[in-house]
Amino acid sequence: MSSELYKKFFKAALVEAGKAFKKNEVPIGAVVVKNEKIIARAHNLTEKKGNFLAHAEILCIEKAAKKLKTKYLKDCEIFITLEPCRMCEAAASLSRIESIHYLIGSEKFGASGKAYKQISLSEQKLESSEESRKLLQDFFKKKRYAKKR
Amino acid sequence: MSSELYKKFFKAALVEAGKAFKKNEVPIGAVVVKNEKIIARAHNLTEKKGNFLAHAEILCIEKAAKKLKTKYLKDCEIFITLEPCRMCEAAASLSRIESIHYLIGSEKFGASGKAYKQISLSEQKLESSEESRKLLQDFFKKKRYAKKR
Repeated sequence: MSSELYKKFFKAALVEAGKAFKKNEVPIGAVVVKNEKIIARAHNLTEKKGNFLAHAEILCIEKAAKKLKTKYLKDCEIFITLEPCRMCEAAASLSRIESIHYLIGSEKFGASGKAYKQISLSEQKLESSEESRKLLQDFFKKKRYAKKR
Repeated sequence: MSSELYKKFFKAALVEAGKAFKKNEVPIGAVVVKNEKIIARAHNLTEKKGNFLAHAEILCIEKAAKKLKTKYLKDCEIFITLEPCRMCEAAASLSRIESIHYLIGSEKFGASGKAYKQISLSEQKLESSEESRKLLQDFFKKKRYAKKR
């Protein structure tokens, strides 16, 4: 991709960040690009939506998936005005986005930053663990069977 | 929390997983609990919603935030039928959920699993990096100023 295109896509992400600023939201913007064309634009809306899931990247990935009518954003890239947080990086990875480009790093809140609370995560081996396992096994068995037919 | 309550909350998460199963979605369910009461329930809807953001945990956190009318899910716990993926773990952490309990581990797709594609992540130092930095600085300056007044 030419440096002119890079500049163009970051410019578009900055326009989104500007929209967030005007709405009194932390000014972060993102665009998703496929075949050198912008297919989705979004900006941070965490205050308006009232939760941390409304990061610019998450909203942008959601829009791109809707636009392409697929869960898999193959051959797509995302341009962000700030380094993504851990949630957004993982969301991009799950969505099969090829690469993430950002304008400025975020040592604390970036994907490998130290801002993340060490959340208590515990496996509870109960009788219902077996029930959960069986439900998943049955589901994938059914899927495989359907594929074979 | 008593083991009876644990069982009850996991049972409710399993009911959600069962709903996903019936909808032909990977059967995973979650509930968010505050003060020993379930405040939100959700199940995986990635097929229906057409993107990877519709994991049970994400939908459940969203519902809980709406219910409590706050971004911060303090004193809340989440009960899931399967170990959360990296995105969901980070989302729970961002939302300040106290702890995550799950019924069965997921070595590959769990938060520290090896399923995550090594996504290409690159900082682009361009002229617009300064613009992005300034926008953020102005925003937080404005916020601090508003607080002082």
